[in-house]
Amino acid sequence: MRILGIDPGSRITGYGLIESRRNQLEFIACGTIRTAGEANFSRRLLVIFSDISEVISSYAPEVAAVEEVFVARDPRAALKLGHARGAAVVAALHQGVEVFNYSPRRVKQTVAGYGQADKAQIQYMVRMLLRLNAAPSSDAADALALAICHAHHSFV
Amino acid sequence: MRILGIDPGSRITGYGLIESRRNQLEFIACGTIRTAGEANFSRRLLVIFSDISEVISSYAPEVAAVEEVFVARDPRAALKLGHARGAAVVAALHQGVEVFNYSPRRVKQTVAGYGQADKAQIQYMVRMLLRLNAAPSSDAADALALAICHAHHSFV
Repeated sequence: MRILGIDPGSRITGYGLIESRRNQLEFIACGTIRTAGEANFSRRLLVIFSDISEVISSYAPEVAAVEEVFVARDPRAALKLGHARGAAVVAALHQGVEVFNYSPRRVKQTVAGYGQADKAQIQYMVRMLLRLNAAPSSDAADALALAICHAHHSFV
Repeated sequence: MRILGIDPGSRITGYGLIESRRNQLEFIACGTIRTAGEANFSRRLLVIFSDISEVISSYAPEVAAVEEVFVARDPRAALKLGHARGAAVVAALHQGVEVFNYSPRRVKQTVAGYGQADKAQIQYMVRMLLRLNAAPSSDAADALALAICHAHHSFV
């Protein structure tokens, strides 16, 4: 099963792809979509939608795992994050890729054994679990952690 | 110029189309996309994206006017609204329809001459301005008001 993890944000969206075979995880690709330079907020959403659509066309994942967000610092930040997440989720569903949601706590618990794990710890564990030569950027690591979380929970 | 107004919401999304010729406004169509019955929130976003895409294919508007939201009651409501708005905006941009944003205050000021106008007043004014036999539903009226607002400001 090929899994796409997406960590959406209005400035940076991380993505990561893994292949899961009989509980063996294989790294496929990861990257970040940077939209902070685009002043027009609506255009940022189109970039997220288009780039995620392109990633899906290129790597043909069967499912996507996206961070579930219940709370945010303030309404304005929540509104922006909601837009970005909406654009990413719609890009996946539009191409027939089913979307699963995982809370940040559950992702951290799954990849690091600790629900409050910090970003460096997640980067370290993602590198370990996928046997990478170097740690991916924090946003790409979070996306890969989401994909690993889905792989784990779909086998349990 | 054919204008699509969109009033996005996670439960009900209103849309309305008008044609604007030499400052004459003509009603084309309006309706609501109801997603409250769909329990899966991600699926709701796909319904909004797909239905807005279909409206655009059917009526071929040149531009879209969407309500600009800066504040919301609470972060959770803002997050949901952001998702819905992101799905609608991306549907328009993806089909090459440019998106313009107007604050609720500006829309009310334009169609009713009063920035604090209530929903009934907006329904009444939309009916008047478009010479309709009956007032559209509140959500469709809000969407038509957005389209009228864009028509007005693109001629001034």
